[in-house]
Amino acid sequence: MSSNTFGKLFAVTTFGESHGPAIGCVIDGCPPGIPIAPEDFTHDLARRATGRTRHTSQRREADEVEILSGVHEGRTTGTPIALLVRNTDARSKDYDAIARQFRPGHADYTYWQKYGIRDPRGGGRSSARETTMRVAAAVIAKKWLAGRGVVVRGHLAQIGEVLPHGFDARTVDWQAVESNPFFWPVTGQVPELEAYMDALRKSGDSVGARVRVVAEGVPPGWGEPVYGKLDAELASALMSINATKGVEIGAGFAAVAQKGTEHRDEITPDGFLGNHAGGILGGISTGQAIECGVAFKPTSSLRLPGRTVDLDGNPVEVVTTGRHDPCVGIRAVPICEAMVALVLIDQALRHRAQCGDVGPVHPRIPG
Amino acid sequence: MSSNTFGKLFAVTTFGESHGPAIGCVIDGCPPGIPIAPEDFTHDLARRATGRTRHTSQRREADEVEILSGVHEGRTTGTPIALLVRNTDARSKDYDAIARQFRPGHADYTYWQKYGIRDPRGGGRSSARETTMRVAAAVIAKKWLAGRGVVVRGHLAQIGEVLPHGFDARTVDWQAVESNPFFWPVTGQVPELEAYMDALRKSGDSVGARVRVVAEGVPPGWGEPVYGKLDAELASALMSINATKGVEIGAGFAAVAQKGTEHRDEITPDGFLGNHAGGILGGISTGQAIECGVAFKPTSSLRLPGRTVDLDGNPVEVVTTGRHDPCVGIRAVPICEAMVALVLIDQALRHRAQCGDVGPVHPRIPG
Amino acid sequence: MSSNTFGKLFAVTTFGESHGPAIGCVIDGCPPGIPIAPEDFTHDLARRATGRTRHTSQRREADEVEILSGVHEGRTTGTPIALLVRNTDARSKDYDAIARQFRPGHADYTYWQKYGIRDPRGGGRSSARETTMRVAAAVIAKKWLAGRGVVVRGHLAQIGEVLPHGFDARTVDWQAVESNPFFWPVTGQVPELEAYMDALRKSGDSVGARVRVVAEGVPPGWGEPVYGKLDAELASALMSINATKGVEIGAGFAAVAQKGTEHRDEITPDGFLGNHAGGILGGISTGQAIECGVAFKPTSSLRLPGRTVDLDGNPVEVVTTGRHDPCVGIRAVPICEAMVALVLIDQALRHRAQCGDVGPVHPRIPG
Amino acid sequence: MSSNTFGKLFAVTTFGESHGPAIGCVIDGCPPGIPIAPEDFTHDLARRATGRTRHTSQRREADEVEILSGVHEGRTTGTPIALLVRNTDARSKDYDAIARQFRPGHADYTYWQKYGIRDPRGGGRSSARETTMRVAAAVIAKKWLAGRGVVVRGHLAQIGEVLPHGFDARTVDWQAVESNPFFWPVTGQVPELEAYMDALRKSGDSVGARVRVVAEGVPPGWGEPVYGKLDAELASALMSINATKGVEIGAGFAAVAQKGTEHRDEITPDGFLGNHAGGILGGISTGQAIECGVAFKPTSSLRLPGRTVDLDGNPVEVVTTGRHDPCVGIRAVPICEAMVALVLIDQALRHRAQCGDVGPVHPRIPG
Repeated sequence: MSSNTFGKLFAVTTFGESHGPAIGCVIDGCPPGIPIAPEDFTHDLARRATGRTRHTSQRREADEVEILSGVHEGRTTGTPIALLVRNTDARSKDYDAIARQFRPGHADYTYWQKYGIRDPRGGGRSSARETTMRVAAAVIAKKWLAGRGVVVRGHLAQIGEVLPHGFDARTVDWQAVESNPFFWPVTGQVPELEAYMDALRKSGDSVGARVRVVAEGVPPGWGEPVYGKLDAELASALMSINATKGVEIGAGFAAVAQKGTEHRDEITPDGFLGNHAGGILGGISTGQAIECGVAFKPTSSLRLPGRTVDLDGNPVEVVTTGRHDPCVGIRAVPICEAMVALVLIDQALRHRAQCGDVGPVHPRIPG
Repeated sequence: MSSNTFGKLFAVTTFGESHGPAIGCVIDGCPPGIPIAPEDFTHDLARRATGRTRHTSQRREADEVEILSGVHEGRTTGTPIALLVRNTDARSKDYDAIARQFRPGHADYTYWQKYGIRDPRGGGRSSARETTMRVAAAVIAKKWLAGRGVVVRGHLAQIGEVLPHGFDARTVDWQAVESNPFFWPVTGQVPELEAYMDALRKSGDSVGARVRVVAEGVPPGWGEPVYGKLDAELASALMSINATKGVEIGAGFAAVAQKGTEHRDEITPDGFLGNHAGGILGGISTGQAIECGVAFKPTSSLRLPGRTVDLDGNPVEVVTTGRHDPCVGIRAVPICEAMVALVLIDQALRHRAQCGDVGPVHPRIPG
Repeated sequence: MSSNTFGKLFAVTTFGESHGPAIGCVIDGCPPGIPIAPEDFTHDLARRATGRTRHTSQRREADEVEILSGVHEGRTTGTPIALLVRNTDARSKDYDAIARQFRPGHADYTYWQKYGIRDPRGGGRSSARETTMRVAAAVIAKKWLAGRGVVVRGHLAQIGEVLPHGFDARTVDWQAVESNPFFWPVTGQVPELEAYMDALRKSGDSVGARVRVVAEGVPPGWGEPVYGKLDAELASALMSINATKGVEIGAGFAAVAQKGTEHRDEITPDGFLGNHAGGILGGISTGQAIECGVAFKPTSSLRLPGRTVDLDGNPVEVVTTGRHDPCVGIRAVPICEAMVALVLIDQALRHRAQCGDVGPVHPRIPG
Repeated sequence: MSSNTFGKLFAVTTFGESHGPAIGCVIDGCPPGIPIAPEDFTHDLARRATGRTRHTSQRREADEVEILSGVHEGRTTGTPIALLVRNTDARSKDYDAIARQFRPGHADYTYWQKYGIRDPRGGGRSSARETTMRVAAAVIAKKWLAGRGVVVRGHLAQIGEVLPHGFDARTVDWQAVESNPFFWPVTGQVPELEAYMDALRKSGDSVGARVRVVAEGVPPGWGEPVYGKLDAELASALMSINATKGVEIGAGFAAVAQKGTEHRDEITPDGFLGNHAGGILGGISTGQAIECGVAFKPTSSLRLPGRTVDLDGNPVEVVTTGRHDPCVGIRAVPICEAMVALVLIDQALRHRAQCGDVGPVHPRIPG
């Protein structure tokens, strides 16, 4: 039940602080026989990494993954897989000035109240640096899922008040998403976003974002009623990402204003007539695409000064001079994908335990 | 890790089907010495129950709680508390006609695909009847929390497209909320809602709703980074309720369009200057009010006919003639409260395990 | 992680006190489709029950199992199975006299110190009455195991200083075991045991016992290194039974004085040349019979007076006049079987989750 | 529920293979504020290490512990503590010859059948090298326990057929135990043991051993009925150590032949009159010393040839030429201590969660 472990059967335990010697994870319960090599991690870690464009934090981490255990002759053995990434660009001095302050919107105050002491360097454990290991662990999960026809992909669906123009959520151009630094589904809009982000960075302010993740190919039957429901696990997984403020499935909050005749996805022999459910009914997958939306708050670390108090309760002004993302939601796309993939492999193994297989029992409703 | 258990240290395992002989729960890990009697359950179960007004399902269950264990001479003993509620108004005949159909928007199809077989009577395990036991278990949790100054309350914040008029979320009139069948915070609007619901019921259609839950008095320090974060646990808890499609904390999805200077809650010696965070930073409580929003979809069981398929994949028309709520979100208010209370007691015990006490280590920031 | 739950994937949560209204359990994670009826529980519960012969406690419980959930039209549905047994012969007055004393060798003192309060009626939660539900839950587990060729059986291997005469552990006559009230493998010795027990009962004293459990048909590959090893789980399961003081696997404590050349079970193409390992190597089943030995202490409740203290620390004399077994180890045989069966189904499901099937990957070493 | 994790609230997850790049562990749930430095691990790791005397395997590992996370300015912060030990003396060539054979008494065959593939180098994950991390994690546990007056110590109680002469288990000379390479409580017997072990090594054979662990200072009230009983957790913990075949508490298997009047530990105002219970009643500590006995089998890796089969089922002769202990039980002493310490801290935190403190509620029975 350790709180730094995600998943019950594909259990990922992460460790490490933003500016400590290393971050890492241990994956327990991984099926044996999956081919895995250090270079398999490169692509997704690069998608998540900072310092790649001017629109993200300028911290540059090598993010080289060392496989310490659980892999023999290029294949998983069924024993725990430990992955290690050394921190190489940790500039603790950037943070010394604020070690005695509580940055507004950060976990400084809450860690200090919970544990009595805290590691102030770069946010310590509360830093989004931890999510590196989620993405790394999910690389293995995605491989296993891909072998069963399941593909998990995400894109940005909103930055601040900017929405994708002329976008149909049912026909995402995934190549377009991967071709720009914003994971934006409408390529023609990228110059607009570049200008928007440049202006934002100059202003010293930050902005929120909305991420959408779609998992295709999930068979009917995954999900564990009633407290391990697929949507409940997705909500927990996505809400555990730094800076998340909301999670929705399918129609999400829009369902509040819908009528039942509009929302319920009727069924014909040719398949479901809609997917307001987001691919989940009663906490179990329907076989349709699973769709999640995630709200990210604007970065709290700003060049613009703010009011706060110090350890003794005295008022002070806080200004963040470190390297930060003006919109943390952008880099959150691969992290959201990772969490959805980790939920899915875990649910697949749980389903297999109880029901004997990963697939549905009966013939499927198409589509 | 059983999926019908909620909580790690205050662990509630529920069982029972909508039209089986009984529903019940076992609460393990409850602190000893809490006074508890059968009549303590009456108030909250009545708030959740159907059949009380014309605006909810007309099923009338006695909902009498029998305490089977774990209480001696009126106090909890530290051993498992089993609670049992017999089903008395289960009319299976209402459901016979649809046993071979998959109701759109229901778990019929997914249970059938997952398990191969399903109990079709009233939705079986997937029925919201299960939530009776969540509310019952939370009665004990709320008692313990009240002893530490923590109060959890909820209200409806939207029905369909109707919003509360002139409502300030910071100063909820909780007496008003409890005085009307809609848990609506603006009493003057009740006649409007009555008319709205009457029209809806006549039309045979249904509508979604939005619930807001506020937990006051939570000390700083509750919550378990990084996968057992307080907000992640709340998201999981609330998303596990039947018909939920979205969960948000604090500013929630509104944070997407906010600027960092607007969202971050600055701090002065007199306290926080806002609560966009919803009382949680880095997954740990700040000492401010914890605020959650929950989206409920419109009921899928409608008198208006809909298209679906039967077990053999043939097209059929489905019409629900059973007793159903035109807006399930209304009765969800006490259920949402219950889940928040269950999360809070569990986090409090987890905090106490690691840190030795339920309270914060240092002097608090006021407010 | 609740401590009244046994098993991770086939999770059995028990509740109830010896003299409360009822005892029961909830089984979560049970595979769907297993045929089950109330009468299936009769045989094993009768084997465990008191009051059947003069050699066990004279308490007579009907032990009628009511299935509250999880079974539809005679088959498990995959949802939680709740079983309930009402207590009908609870004579609380037998215990009133000792409510203020700590019975030596009992949990009176420790419950009181742990929880502050305790239910003194018949030992409350610490009574062996709880094991009724272990046996009931294992009836379902045994059914599933039997479908895979796995049979779990136990016998008494020692009462006090009495050992079975001319007994070969490799060829147990299981019919003989079931034909006498002592689960004794050598029928000719039964008159001797009857006389031994009669004398013991007259003396007012009690005696320990040793139980042996054998599981045949387990395929190679079940067991979870390194902390969920099959032998570690068996040790935990068996040591959790009331009055257990020791557990051993295969050669057990006799291995201490063995040489490596004697202990290691060499292998030929015809199979293993011995089974000192007790069917487990590295925490994983070998395909040989799994063999466990369990030590039970003599009953602590005696008619012969003993010294103790009362709640205030004053010396008092304790004499037990209630109904007790002079040798609790006898009735422990079906309980030990039950725990082994519960471990095996749980391990089978865990194996299936990670490795995709319940069987071994490669051709087996015979026998 | 991952099977490479030990403990529920002080959760230790280990990883690593005998001849992989490194072994390590992650400790989650550790209380904050415990002072810890790399040199704190030296003493206990040296007690467990090979290559220190001629009586253990000649493999020499530096066993230098790197603290990767969870410690800031010399104190635990409450976040996960990752410990890493690089493997430096891994001679894989020693094992190449037997990669296609199943060593009798080893996990070669069972891992191969469970996972399909296995890492044959030095036993891979099934090697006792993994226990290094148990000892390392327990160093932190012991520090916390020592702060509450709890001391855990072990000694050898039997090697093969050799028993300690004139030894009184109630008055162990712990200094004597630490002064000889056998953790033997009777110093005068050491020359006899040296000769015994020299002869054994020359013969090429091996022998079993019995370890005894005593935990003093545990307050009444630790332990979680009914499946997380203190004795059940100890049994699981100790049985999970490589080569263990049996575990007993207090009188253990000797209780089988005892009478109730002999076994039950009567109580007077001056304290308990015996400790046949081994400090545990009803799964909860009594405040007396907790006493465990553990049986270790003789090492299966022998220079003396044995019969086995290869991957194809053909008969082959196996001779172990690697570096092995003639009596693995000797080095098991600090490992047994470690497991007892890990159980105790976990139970203490669980007790604190439910009951609010680590100590008993009422005044204690002395002694």
